[in-house]
Amino acid sequence: MSAPSIAVLHNLATQLRIDSVRSTSEAGSGHPTTCLSAADVIAALFFAEMRFDPHDPQHPEADRFVLSKGHGAPILYAAWAAAGAFPRADLLNLRKITSDLEGHPTPRLPFVDVATGSLGQGLAAAVGIALNARRIGSDYRTYVMLGDGETAEGSVWEAAEVAAMQKLDNLCAITDVNGLGQSRATQWNHHLDAFVSRYRAFGWNAVAIDGHDMSAILKALADARATKGKPTMIVAGTLKGKGISFIEGKDGWHGKALKKGEEMDKGIAELEAQYQKTSDPAPVIPKPAQRRTEGPLPDFVAKMPAPAYKLGDSVATREAFGAALPQLGAIDRRVVAVDADVKNSTYTEKFEKAYPDRFFQTFIAEQAMIGVSMGMASRGAIPFPTTFACFLERGADFIRMAGISNLNIKLAGTHCGVSIGEDGPSQMALEDLAMVRGLPNATVLYPCDAVSTERLLAVAAATRGPAYLRLSRPKTPVIYGNDEQFPVGGSKTLRKSDKDQVVVVAAGVTVFEALKAHDALAKENVHVRVVDAYSVQPIDRDGIVAAAKASGGRVITVEDHYAHGGLGDAVSEAVSNDGVRVQRLAVREIPRSGQPDELIDRYGISARAIADAVRTMLK
Amino acid sequence: MSAPSIAVLHNLATQLRIDSVRSTSEAGSGHPTTCLSAADVIAALFFAEMRFDPHDPQHPEADRFVLSKGHGAPILYAAWAAAGAFPRADLLNLRKITSDLEGHPTPRLPFVDVATGSLGQGLAAAVGIALNARRIGSDYRTYVMLGDGETAEGSVWEAAEVAAMQKLDNLCAITDVNGLGQSRATQWNHHLDAFVSRYRAFGWNAVAIDGHDMSAILKALADARATKGKPTMIVAGTLKGKGISFIEGKDGWHGKALKKGEEMDKGIAELEAQYQKTSDPAPVIPKPAQRRTEGPLPDFVAKMPAPAYKLGDSVATREAFGAALPQLGAIDRRVVAVDADVKNSTYTEKFEKAYPDRFFQTFIAEQAMIGVSMGMASRGAIPFPTTFACFLERGADFIRMAGISNLNIKLAGTHCGVSIGEDGPSQMALEDLAMVRGLPNATVLYPCDAVSTERLLAVAAATRGPAYLRLSRPKTPVIYGNDEQFPVGGSKTLRKSDKDQVVVVAAGVTVFEALKAHDALAKENVHVRVVDAYSVQPIDRDGIVAAAKASGGRVITVEDHYAHGGLGDAVSEAVSNDGVRVQRLAVREIPRSGQPDELIDRYGISARAIADAVRTMLK
Repeated sequence: MSAPSIAVLHNLATQLRIDSVRSTSEAGSGHPTTCLSAADVIAALFFAEMRFDPHDPQHPEADRFVLSKGHGAPILYAAWAAAGAFPRADLLNLRKITSDLEGHPTPRLPFVDVATGSLGQGLAAAVGIALNARRIGSDYRTYVMLGDGETAEGSVWEAAEVAAMQKLDNLCAITDVNGLGQSRATQWNHHLDAFVSRYRAFGWNAVAIDGHDMSAILKALADARATKGKPTMIVAGTLKGKGISFIEGKDGWHGKALKKGEEMDKGIAELEAQYQKTSDPAPVIPKPAQRRTEGPLPDFVAKMPAPAYKLGDSVATREAFGAALPQLGAIDRRVVAVDADVKNSTYTEKFEKAYPDRFFQTFIAEQAMIGVSMGMASRGAIPFPTTFACFLERGADFIRMAGISNLNIKLAGTHCGVSIGEDGPSQMALEDLAMVRGLPNATVLYPCDAVSTERLLAVAAATRGPAYLRLSRPKTPVIYGNDEQFPVGGSKTLRKSDKDQVVVVAAGVTVFEALKAHDALAKENVHVRVVDAYSVQPIDRDGIVAAAKASGGRVITVEDHYAHGGLGDAVSEAVSNDGVRVQRLAVREIPRSGQPDELIDRYGISARAIADAVRTMLK
Repeated sequence: MSAPSIAVLHNLATQLRIDSVRSTSEAGSGHPTTCLSAADVIAALFFAEMRFDPHDPQHPEADRFVLSKGHGAPILYAAWAAAGAFPRADLLNLRKITSDLEGHPTPRLPFVDVATGSLGQGLAAAVGIALNARRIGSDYRTYVMLGDGETAEGSVWEAAEVAAMQKLDNLCAITDVNGLGQSRATQWNHHLDAFVSRYRAFGWNAVAIDGHDMSAILKALADARATKGKPTMIVAGTLKGKGISFIEGKDGWHGKALKKGEEMDKGIAELEAQYQKTSDPAPVIPKPAQRRTEGPLPDFVAKMPAPAYKLGDSVATREAFGAALPQLGAIDRRVVAVDADVKNSTYTEKFEKAYPDRFFQTFIAEQAMIGVSMGMASRGAIPFPTTFACFLERGADFIRMAGISNLNIKLAGTHCGVSIGEDGPSQMALEDLAMVRGLPNATVLYPCDAVSTERLLAVAAATRGPAYLRLSRPKTPVIYGNDEQFPVGGSKTLRKSDKDQVVVVAAGVTVFEALKAHDALAKENVHVRVVDAYSVQPIDRDGIVAAAKASGGRVITVEDHYAHGGLGDAVSEAVSNDGVRVQRLAVREIPRSGQPDELIDRYGISARAIADAVRTMLK
């Protein structure tokens, strides 16, 4: 099988340019100029470099391509169509509600691993995909194309650092330096050395080339393949709008389709004139050498050993998580952990000790931690990126995109709420439930004791899509028997009588405050039901509605979180059709340093505050 | 006034070390070892470099110091105490609920500009503070100390890029390279050149020194002062725990106080033995040369010219925002705009044209955009960092910290919701309301037409603390008269009769869907009240409760946002004590590309969906 000729590749690049222009003009919107700058590199990648099967794009050992500059979607689609994945005519459905050829790529398309379009995320995902090759022992290579403008995103440099640390020579990135951003020239314009010097300083092999010189592109890709111990960055100098004289290199053409009719026709005529006559053979895309699969996922919930705690044991949920994660890892080698230098506080160090080859360290770079996990999840891994819950918020936009991609990523966040105590507000996650509940496809689990933590860890692994496990710093007593099960969407009624006047819905540390309030109120002959809403999303709607109705239609929610977007919101919506009264106890001001018990009381989520709220509600 | 001697500075460093150890031991928690590595640099900065007045820490022309490695708080406090800002004895109240000497610095303390403790944020804030010096024409200098571990945060490199682009030679950063992170050695250990080469590649003047060599520190600071056209990074090689033999350079001592008693006493005895005998004079801290202030803020709401739209004009709220921002800027020069390369979509380009010296470009770096704004806000500016609403989420953790700092930062986010259309889900903000409503001190405003946008822009500027203006892409008709006022916490009742059976609470684009539903239902003799909840936080509780009670206790909320944490949540909480039924219409799955109207209908927030929900509710 010989490599395709330069003329053939040139003509394919021309075809991709034409298809990009035509599809965006038909849609009446989109980003043709950014496709035109990238066309030569894309043609080289798809038809002279990568091994893949257009009819089996999710082949587990195929080379991968991530288009980090997601607004270049039209040329990505054109390349897959040219490779034979679907008919070229479908390209004209770009951006229609009836088509999966969306404005920016999403995994609704079988050849897209991670959604892109929020700039600066593709490199981190590609690093995760490249690490996954190492995990499964495959020689597939990972390619990623960045825009020059998105190089300003810090997430790019987080990922660059991880790639160099991990010596990912199976990763080849290309930056399409067309010099123009959305609203003006980028800060670097066409100074290719600005990119080369930065990547070299970050430990990469980096070369600058003319991104419209097909021979130079092929040589750079070959050199990248030959480079050992380092990832390669190819800095490709290009022109935005390349090939159409009246838009080439011109500002003001970002995100603008050529008008159908005269304008488009003129552009396409110019491109068509660039076809070269050749009788060289069409390219043959090489398939991956072998196809090994990892098989269906096991039943994590059934296979997870039962917890072995004693009632009353005092264990922080973060400790129980750290202790159980290696047990989950023992069930299937797709379970991996990713840390951002807090493994000794989150206890993922236990997983590292058990499975050093499935433990990944990004250091203090949470966007990379989550982005790398997204890449790994897209290739079959079940990653647990774990840090303090508040620092997961550093990756909020990655989490958003993980939701759009519906990736099987399992976020674990420790040290939630004011109950962390003296470290103060910068270390307290008080909006994390709101952040993750925002995703309609996310499962949010919030255990209060060690038994429920172990069980919910397996549940998180078993539940398809993004999941979040919210974990606490303080030690709490074990209240559940080791045989107790915790299905998604369930809740536990911990105190109940037929005289209940109010139901208190709690989760995490506030469960214990609710139990104390129950006991204090019982002495006053006031009866409250206590529910542990360990599944915050989906919430146990039926259970909570029934509990509310059995308790005089009065609900008090109590959470170590701000008042909005968390447990109170979930419960309010659950009972909203039933005319039930709901009062939310939550943190309602910026908290400060202090001892956990002092803070829980000061911010109105203690047993005392609950009891007061119950008394007031019953007045 | 002569410079203090090396011996005097050395002794001050020793005092700071002793105070850091003693205060953390007394608290029983905290990070003494990271203070010990930084002590020599801190002593040099506070007693031989910076101009400030310890009794007037917010002096507008004093040099500024940001401790980006916020866990080093004890030595920051010790330095201010040593400078005379408060009694040294107060240091023993560290981390107590009764003291503002919190675990990590917050602006509750008069000498803290921005809260730190979420690593990697201090440099961006310092860039903003340095830019502010330029804005007010002051020669104050800005200093910032980073930890080596936090250098992995991409936000550091976003800020580094902006500082170099802006040629901020009034900015001097120091990285305290003690080689140890929280859980292990950093990826760079003591390879100082890894830092120097990275910063040089990013356009900085960078030098490596021994961070315990006082002469070298003073020389590096002097060289930084003499360097023109570039910011300076001093890479200081240090030992974590420096000065106490049994912890110096040892892993496992991050975030661990020496035990009170024998352990602490032994450490302090070692430190005390390091005092040098000297009769050299104590340092005299130079005060800033002059003290100019900007005066009280004007009444933005009163001074803003009345809008000049006609009823029925078709104007996107993002356009109205862009047109009005220069008018706001004309009222006071503290109003500034910060862009991340989308000024032609958010229309902040109009502000740039009017006030080029108050327009700041971070390029595609949203964390820097927000962090720089935080720094500027901490020094009196009223910044409007503006981008697509979904990309504000890139800076979610910065926004969190801006909340903790209660900074006067005004976020503006355009292109919210599915109503953007064809660009698809990666460009749609659907969890932004949840993100900002998380902050208990944030004001969240969501105008539906051009008039309310102009008014609410002034309201945002006039309201102290973080504010968020949510703006839409599609054109919408002007429905308010130019004299209408929009106070924080208000709402507008747009349709009302004494036969109303349901109240529909909408905001932004859904206001128009609600109005259409009202008209369609009226033909069926079904009467709905329509409320525009332009103030999402605080919500008009009384108004909405009254409307609900007057409408049969039935409420339907409708928002171009996911179902959680947004308008539905706000309204649910507002009416939660009144046994009112609330149904939320919101986007409940990951959306896709399509035309705006198609998407609004498909995701259940159209006039049709509202009318259906009303009919169902009345069944």
